[in-house]
Amino acid sequence: MAKMKKEFVEHITSQAEDFSRWYTDVIMKADMVDYSDVKGCMVIKQYGYGIWELIQEEMDRRFKETGHKNAYFPLLIPESLLQKEAEHVEGFAPEVAWVTHGGGEKLQERLCIRPTSETIICSMYAKWVQSYRDLPILLNQWANVLRWEKTTRPFLRTSEFLWQEGHTVHATQQEAEEETVKMLGVYKEFAENVLAIPVITGQKSEKEKFAGADHTYTMEAMMLDGRALQMGTSHNLGQNFAKGFGIQYLDKDSKLKYPWQTSWGTSTRMIGGLIMVHGDDRGLKLPPKVAPIQCMIIPIAAFKEGVMEKSRELYDTIKKAGIRVDLDDRDQSAGWKFNDCELRGIPLRLEIGPKDIEQGQVVLVRRDTFEKITVPMEGIAETIANLLDEIHANMLKMAREFRDAHTFKATNFEEFEKGIEKGHGFVKAMWCGCRECEDAIKEKTGVTTRCMPFDDDEVLSDVCVFCGKPAKKLMVFAKSY
Amino acid sequence: MAKMKKEFVEHITSQAEDFSRWYTDVIMKADMVDYSDVKGCMVIKQYGYGIWELIQEEMDRRFKETGHKNAYFPLLIPESLLQKEAEHVEGFAPEVAWVTHGGGEKLQERLCIRPTSETIICSMYAKWVQSYRDLPILLNQWANVLRWEKTTRPFLRTSEFLWQEGHTVHATQQEAEEETVKMLGVYKEFAENVLAIPVITGQKSEKEKFAGADHTYTMEAMMLDGRALQMGTSHNLGQNFAKGFGIQYLDKDSKLKYPWQTSWGTSTRMIGGLIMVHGDDRGLKLPPKVAPIQCMIIPIAAFKEGVMEKSRELYDTIKKAGIRVDLDDRDQSAGWKFNDCELRGIPLRLEIGPKDIEQGQVVLVRRDTFEKITVPMEGIAETIANLLDEIHANMLKMAREFRDAHTFKATNFEEFEKGIEKGHGFVKAMWCGCRECEDAIKEKTGVTTRCMPFDDDEVLSDVCVFCGKPAKKLMVFAKSY
Repeated sequence: MAKMKKEFVEHITSQAEDFSRWYTDVIMKADMVDYSDVKGCMVIKQYGYGIWELIQEEMDRRFKETGHKNAYFPLLIPESLLQKEAEHVEGFAPEVAWVTHGGGEKLQERLCIRPTSETIICSMYAKWVQSYRDLPILLNQWANVLRWEKTTRPFLRTSEFLWQEGHTVHATQQEAEEETVKMLGVYKEFAENVLAIPVITGQKSEKEKFAGADHTYTMEAMMLDGRALQMGTSHNLGQNFAKGFGIQYLDKDSKLKYPWQTSWGTSTRMIGGLIMVHGDDRGLKLPPKVAPIQCMIIPIAAFKEGVMEKSRELYDTIKKAGIRVDLDDRDQSAGWKFNDCELRGIPLRLEIGPKDIEQGQVVLVRRDTFEKITVPMEGIAETIANLLDEIHANMLKMAREFRDAHTFKATNFEEFEKGIEKGHGFVKAMWCGCRECEDAIKEKTGVTTRCMPFDDDEVLSDVCVFCGKPAKKLMVFAKSY
Repeated sequence: MAKMKKEFVEHITSQAEDFSRWYTDVIMKADMVDYSDVKGCMVIKQYGYGIWELIQEEMDRRFKETGHKNAYFPLLIPESLLQKEAEHVEGFAPEVAWVTHGGGEKLQERLCIRPTSETIICSMYAKWVQSYRDLPILLNQWANVLRWEKTTRPFLRTSEFLWQEGHTVHATQQEAEEETVKMLGVYKEFAENVLAIPVITGQKSEKEKFAGADHTYTMEAMMLDGRALQMGTSHNLGQNFAKGFGIQYLDKDSKLKYPWQTSWGTSTRMIGGLIMVHGDDRGLKLPPKVAPIQCMIIPIAAFKEGVMEKSRELYDTIKKAGIRVDLDDRDQSAGWKFNDCELRGIPLRLEIGPKDIEQGQVVLVRRDTFEKITVPMEGIAETIANLLDEIHANMLKMAREFRDAHTFKATNFEEFEKGIEKGHGFVKAMWCGCRECEDAIKEKTGVTTRCMPFDDDEVLSDVCVFCGKPAKKLMVFAKSY
């Protein structure tokens, strides 16, 4: 058994050796994804898509609980629509794909494949919003989008990706701001309680904000290589799109007014995040709430009388309790199956052999700690449910500890540079708010501004860590994906 | 109240006057859909999309219960891939949209937006299928597809539409045939038990089959104007794509073999179907299982003490029972709300006023029969659940009766033509199986071959209804969408 495990694991590059190759090895060998014939586009295989379905289910429930409804808008956007908001077109036009021919003919106006849907949705809002009675509009779309990317990596950056995009319209600036903050809060709660990923939430710099927004809020997570991953963003669009698209409503005071808008999105990128926050050298480590299989039953000495019967009985009992359980009855050794379970990141495996049956017990092995626990068969579903909760809590805790241990505070640029050299992932420092400092820091160190955290008012110094001019706000810097 | 109803209803063209305008009026006024700036593409608004979400939920469960898993493949297909199956490219190439530029540059090879995904999926199957151990692959995809259409109508025929496409690979011809039949069976069960739409299932003619398939099975429903709507198809692809794409597996006997494939699909078109099977001059009539709102509570004399409180209490009770209930607390008259309820096809409305509260009762009004029933408040959730089941059963029954009353048997061409003139929707007749007769019948009468029914072995005559040569099979003919 030990030998097989070794052989198997050798196929995955270790994180220490090459984190990037480790990532590719894991997603390919765990059968999550495959490369397609279309440059920059991935195939999400059944196991990877199963995770996405669970993410969708959890998020969608949260959107509906906060009053949002889903709708669907066209994939193709006429060039003239894309151009109606100046900053937006500048930001997105360089990376879109253009449809020029359809039905055997050249089109009069070329159409781009949506890189995001503000423009097509706003063109409809201009029709739908007439009176204050029509507001607010709280809407979400689950869709594919396409942004032509030069360098791509499955889940993290692909030309086509799957996402959700919320688009709301409000009568007042305050309401729009509340929505922007609220939805980022939904994202954060989801990241922590579902993906077991601790995130820092805060505001993006002007440079890093969404093209066309007044300001952008973000949640940033630290990967195991210390880099930041932007896991979701929420934009206060102000009246920019309303003015660009002529969206106006007649208010109670009989005056025509421009409404205030927001948009917010998360994508299949989150799957890349959970791989890089939790995984280890044996493979994936899935947070129980998005694990397509939460518990894998592995019969030991399956050929012996009663083992398969008992395994199937346990399967039925556990399944009935609403736990996503599977039974590995393939014609392979138990050791091979243990490795496969670990590679695919299944939170719990359950081993059952003749001796266990004799003693009315089973062995549970946690993926997060490798702890082996012998428990009575009686009440097994409840035992598993509790353990899954424990595993979630422990994974969140471990991720938080890792992040905190790799976060560093710098009060001057020498400290800043040293912190990065020492392998600290996040560097917190005071910043003047100038684009010049932001660009210079990036050029000198490779790190970018991630966000000005909401719940961190610490004043590390009065002056900008780079230029020494009066500091505006605490900024989190990091190398990023 | 009566007056308001009249005023309201006047906005919908009656079915008798102009069925096509009735359809457009209903989908627009019930707020299901809107036209976009992109020719031939629709916006599916929240109410319409809510129906699609329920359809997806019901279908997806059935796919998973029959062993299928979801995955996701790229939107864009290189031209060279599209061309690998000869019949397939001939069928689809004329109606695809081409991406020629991306990221600011002209592409070396143009990419089409998927009209269906056989080609991109088969290019992956060529990698994934190596051994008999890899089979069967049972896979489904929920996605948007695009077919450039000259004449479009929301839900029924749009350039972009949402659908699911199953794609399976099997070791034997028999297994593939069984899968093709099984999935059409799943569709039929779904159509009847969820959409309350009776369907005829059977085989398409060679002319009407899917481009690249050995043969195509279909389910056909009759709309209230007598026309047929193809509601879903299941294709036995034989080894055509396997040969085109070089998909081969090493069998147990150590021989390299081509596997056998199927594909099957249903789309947002089904929403068009349920509108045209069930609707009436007051608007939509939604089958309870896909109604986003199954029961609408309308307070009568809402301003009177206790009415709103009781309404909210009922709302909580009914919601807790898992029924999709809503409370119309808008500032409008009860009559206006009744009309709105009918327009949007809500299966049941619940009226509650001061007198009802006094007597511990509520009034329920069925959308399908307009029947008014006074029932005790006690046990209201169970009463509603039972009534929703009854409504479903009655809607299916009414649709079946309508279809049967508009189906006609013809043993010679004179009868055939008369049947159509008399407004019969489906004409059953014997057919020789020749393309020439199929084309001639279409040219003379405007009807097309819908399917050779599975469960109808009646022999109406020995000879073809058109040419008089020996007949092969009973065929259902109809005008179609």
